[in-house]
Amino acid sequence: MALLHEDRLFPADERSRTIARRLYEGIKGLPILSPHGHTQARWFANNEPFPDPVKLFVQPDHYVFRMLYSQGITMEELEIGEAEIEEPREVWRIFASHYYLFRGTPTRLWLDYAFQELFGMTERLCEKNAQRYYDTIAQKLQTPEFLPRTLYDRFNIEVLATTDSPLEALADHEAIRKSGWKARIIPTFRPDSVVDPQHPGFLDNVRALGALMGEDTFTWRGYLRALARRREYFKEMGCRATDHGHPTALTEDLSETSAAALFEQVIKGTAYAADLEIFRGQMLTEMARMSLEDGLVMQIHPGSVRNHNAQIFARYGRDMGADIPAPTNYVEALRPLLNRFGNERNLTIILFTLDETTYSRELAPLAGHYPCLKLGPPWWFHDSPDGMMRFREMATETAGFYNTVGFNDDTRAFLSIPARHDVARRIDAAFLGRMVAEHRLDEDEAVELAKDLTVGLVKKAYKL
Amino acid sequence: MALLHEDRLFPADERSRTIARRLYEGIKGLPILSPHGHTQARWFANNEPFPDPVKLFVQPDHYVFRMLYSQGITMEELEIGEAEIEEPREVWRIFASHYYLFRGTPTRLWLDYAFQELFGMTERLCEKNAQRYYDTIAQKLQTPEFLPRTLYDRFNIEVLATTDSPLEALADHEAIRKSGWKARIIPTFRPDSVVDPQHPGFLDNVRALGALMGEDTFTWRGYLRALARRREYFKEMGCRATDHGHPTALTEDLSETSAAALFEQVIKGTAYAADLEIFRGQMLTEMARMSLEDGLVMQIHPGSVRNHNAQIFARYGRDMGADIPAPTNYVEALRPLLNRFGNERNLTIILFTLDETTYSRELAPLAGHYPCLKLGPPWWFHDSPDGMMRFREMATETAGFYNTVGFNDDTRAFLSIPARHDVARRIDAAFLGRMVAEHRLDEDEAVELAKDLTVGLVKKAYKL
Amino acid sequence: MALLHEDRLFPADERSRTIARRLYEGIKGLPILSPHGHTQARWFANNEPFPDPVKLFVQPDHYVFRMLYSQGITMEELEIGEAEIEEPREVWRIFASHYYLFRGTPTRLWLDYAFQELFGMTERLCEKNAQRYYDTIAQKLQTPEFLPRTLYDRFNIEVLATTDSPLEALADHEAIRKSGWKARIIPTFRPDSVVDPQHPGFLDNVRALGALMGEDTFTWRGYLRALARRREYFKEMGCRATDHGHPTALTEDLSETSAAALFEQVIKGTAYAADLEIFRGQMLTEMARMSLEDGLVMQIHPGSVRNHNAQIFARYGRDMGADIPAPTNYVEALRPLLNRFGNERNLTIILFTLDETTYSRELAPLAGHYPCLKLGPPWWFHDSPDGMMRFREMATETAGFYNTVGFNDDTRAFLSIPARHDVARRIDAAFLGRMVAEHRLDEDEAVELAKDLTVGLVKKAYKL
Repeated sequence: MALLHEDRLFPADERSRTIARRLYEGIKGLPILSPHGHTQARWFANNEPFPDPVKLFVQPDHYVFRMLYSQGITMEELEIGEAEIEEPREVWRIFASHYYLFRGTPTRLWLDYAFQELFGMTERLCEKNAQRYYDTIAQKLQTPEFLPRTLYDRFNIEVLATTDSPLEALADHEAIRKSGWKARIIPTFRPDSVVDPQHPGFLDNVRALGALMGEDTFTWRGYLRALARRREYFKEMGCRATDHGHPTALTEDLSETSAAALFEQVIKGTAYAADLEIFRGQMLTEMARMSLEDGLVMQIHPGSVRNHNAQIFARYGRDMGADIPAPTNYVEALRPLLNRFGNERNLTIILFTLDETTYSRELAPLAGHYPCLKLGPPWWFHDSPDGMMRFREMATETAGFYNTVGFNDDTRAFLSIPARHDVARRIDAAFLGRMVAEHRLDEDEAVELAKDLTVGLVKKAYKL
Repeated sequence: MALLHEDRLFPADERSRTIARRLYEGIKGLPILSPHGHTQARWFANNEPFPDPVKLFVQPDHYVFRMLYSQGITMEELEIGEAEIEEPREVWRIFASHYYLFRGTPTRLWLDYAFQELFGMTERLCEKNAQRYYDTIAQKLQTPEFLPRTLYDRFNIEVLATTDSPLEALADHEAIRKSGWKARIIPTFRPDSVVDPQHPGFLDNVRALGALMGEDTFTWRGYLRALARRREYFKEMGCRATDHGHPTALTEDLSETSAAALFEQVIKGTAYAADLEIFRGQMLTEMARMSLEDGLVMQIHPGSVRNHNAQIFARYGRDMGADIPAPTNYVEALRPLLNRFGNERNLTIILFTLDETTYSRELAPLAGHYPCLKLGPPWWFHDSPDGMMRFREMATETAGFYNTVGFNDDTRAFLSIPARHDVARRIDAAFLGRMVAEHRLDEDEAVELAKDLTVGLVKKAYKL
Repeated sequence: MALLHEDRLFPADERSRTIARRLYEGIKGLPILSPHGHTQARWFANNEPFPDPVKLFVQPDHYVFRMLYSQGITMEELEIGEAEIEEPREVWRIFASHYYLFRGTPTRLWLDYAFQELFGMTERLCEKNAQRYYDTIAQKLQTPEFLPRTLYDRFNIEVLATTDSPLEALADHEAIRKSGWKARIIPTFRPDSVVDPQHPGFLDNVRALGALMGEDTFTWRGYLRALARRREYFKEMGCRATDHGHPTALTEDLSETSAAALFEQVIKGTAYAADLEIFRGQMLTEMARMSLEDGLVMQIHPGSVRNHNAQIFARYGRDMGADIPAPTNYVEALRPLLNRFGNERNLTIILFTLDETTYSRELAPLAGHYPCLKLGPPWWFHDSPDGMMRFREMATETAGFYNTVGFNDDTRAFLSIPARHDVARRIDAAFLGRMVAEHRLDEDEAVELAKDLTVGLVKKAYKL
């Protein structure tokens, strides 16, 4: 008995499945490139054991607790937001007895993979075996095989990018480099907290950036200079990319005078909400300009309505499973930036979306024309077998494969990394397998494509 | 020869089909739960024979006559809107000779099911056999086997909900209860005519509600009290749910003072169109508040642009096949209501949509977080094999199965009820069969899920 | 070895594929009806050899060069926009060495078809065989078998529609008719340049139309009369349809006084941008009115944001691969026109879209009700295997097959015509094959449908 079938996620029809199986064989052992994610450099700097099963699998994973919450289990029962879990076995029991809720979701696939491949479980998690599961996991986590660095090596990771505020000193990254451990754990420059005036603590953050860089960041020029210099520091620390999580994809291309005047209002706190959106849009164009200079790849993640649940936000803060996607426009929103830099061949902007309608309508046509644009993989709610399949089906015919950039695991859950990459590789094999079965592609091409989607395009897009 | 193949709607590949067949075997005989629809309690109260084939299959079914109309057949030729059909055989001949127009539509599936399973026809309807069909159906309709109550029992219906105005006395429901016949035919509280100021006759309806309940419904408090008390009456009559067919999903959460002031303007007829929309939005939140008190489940059906064809509306009135879906937003529209009541675990709000883009973008993420939200099945134009499949494919990975509520037949055509539930069961079996074939689910789980989707989730969501 | 597999594009599962194969056998040899496209009548009037491979396959095909451009190849390297190609073999080499970029795109399918079926190539194009390919194609193009008229006959084309400005004299069409060659090459009336005030040279065009027709086109009445009379002339030249490429689907139904006043402002250049949009909307309704009089079928192609890339537009002009689709609304936009003419059974309006979300939400419901409306085939970016499949899956259940109008190749590339129709026929066979395999349709019906989709519905919709 096993949790994982070796043919999982391959097409049901035998003709496609046979081809998919062969294609997967050629890529399953390739190293993992993880150019975008939310693991903590600290784990690898300190190399201490991961805590108990609840702190590993339930508390930090909003995919997990949002589903439980949606079915009437309270945040209190799950001890979400608590520094110490008082009754970890009880939380685990609740989780286990509701494991059936995850049927048909990617969370189930990721968890089963970790349970079987890392912890050797072969029986589906349920209330009855909850304590046995707990004991096994808790015990293994204390062994040297489960230390972060050992797992990193075992996972065959070649590069792992974290996501970091410009205010971060990157001390953990520094410590890893100095430790002599041969791993490539690199930061990503995520400036939302210093470029989005609606970010909590924005003014303090801008002031802190100034202090850090010795610039007067309350002037437009000093502010831009501080950002550019901070990017340089990140780059020296191995950073290859920036990341931008704006509410919309709006960009602007103001004159320097207008931009400086707007910045002054923003700093004074006299700007209207609409002007704050314009400011964010202007900052995307400024970031593109800097990317053209320093070569950092730009990632844009728009379209999430953050903290939709006011009560949850008030009590638990951000990233609590209450972010909801909204319709997102790219074609008009990106026009100012693209009219300025769209034809630059030395600029790479990777677009993500939570609005699947834009794949075939806007994103594939844009990326199939502008040299600077590439399409990021299906993101967040769409990082799932059917979600990935829809992305390929809707984007490929217009953008081709070579305007995409391979997979991002985008995860906070280190142990889910191999599972997530495995799902992506299987779905790519499944999609390509169907294309070959339908004679839309020759198998030798599919073999090459499978490798490019797993490794080649990632290295190229992120300059790894 | 037969109209219906036993494997219809199962996946074409043998691996998935074999599993789907087994899953369907486990659910095909389960009783029918119909918690949302538009049949008439009067039929069962009076238990008189259904009229002739045209009055049964053509005249009341907007799916049927809208397709014929779209192809140039006039409403006059079909005698739509006439109290008596003058030339039923000629209307039937027109219908039969255009039956090929329904190829590929769910209407065809529903009709073939009724023709074969109820009337024993085995040859596809066409002009040549039109009169034979007519005779057979007309004759059988006069037999005791075809009386409404006999069919109800034969269909193995466990609960059947009608949809009723608050002004309805529910005399037919009362008569059924008193008749001693053991059937559960329950009303649904559909207050559009007394909460939507743009509903024809709104003021008269509000006045009538006041008269009925002995309240002054031209004051805000009296109006709310009358609604709450009328809900109580419906509940006593077996009602489990309310239903709201608003143009959009907009909700509001006004202070009591503002709400009362707005109500006054609405009653005086001095409110602007935008304010009428705000009023409707406020009434959704009021209804949610009442649901929290009386336990009635709330169904929201937004996004239909009613009576798009002005000429048809002027001559024939509502529900004439000229309602067209429009883009529908949920994420911002529902925010006021959700910020007020979204975290209530004792409230159930079932969301429907005519805009399929919202399944993966808004509805599944919302229902996968808020405890009060559940997703209704594909509605109206999307109540079809491919429509149902898209719903499962786009909603399941984020919302799971357990934030859905099973099937609604939503029909005015009593004879189509078994056919519609059969389609839903087959598509669920097909979807689950593919999931098992792709090893995304174990078969024992699929067996349990198939039953939950058919019975368990319906009973739970609608508190049956 | 071959570029094309005989089973290409058929479903992967054997059950569906076997049926699809049979259905395709019944339609593959049927004549080509091409009621909408952008080939040049001049080619057939002059009947001169097509120029070299680059001028045939690369330079005029924005599908080809936009993909190359998106991957960093410059317009200069491809000699786009040059009257003479200086280094055709080098351009061809660049194209060949990047042929892998087209994997998974319809361009690849179209090109491989032409390469194999017309030029006898059996090896995939790549850098190594680039010059051999070039030589073979260049040589064959000089042979009598590759003259435009010979190819037209060989392609088994029954009707070929071009797309023409009202200012066109249609001399080439006239020359073809007088030449005694038995081919039906007909113009299409595309009035954008004289009805869209934002079209470059609009006023000059309106003046020229007046000169041509001897009308004062700077008065509203004279303008309308000139258009009506020009339509008559096109009709005499074999024209069956008009075509309208507006930014949106907006229609208006102004009083004659308002329309005349708006026209005056438009001519004077004093109208606001919003008024220009209203004017375009009014002109759609005027065109519908004229169609009702003269019987020309109306095609509406809305939703393309033209010339999105300002630099490319400034240097190379229109149609350079930089048009990007935008969200498009139909339900409110078409209401004024439909309220005026929607119930006319003698009017045919064919709707196209670049926004696939409208298939199931707006277009199928509209076409499934209004007698004048039909759905055009998937357009432009969606004229692809998966695009066509999505169209059938999302439109058929509500609109049926008989509110669609068969295939349009819509191409500027004459040599791609057989390839494009072959793809459409194969996808229709694949879709119908699956429907039969799933017992949603009987095979005899599918056989009839396949023919209707290929020939019958095209002839009926375009009155051919």
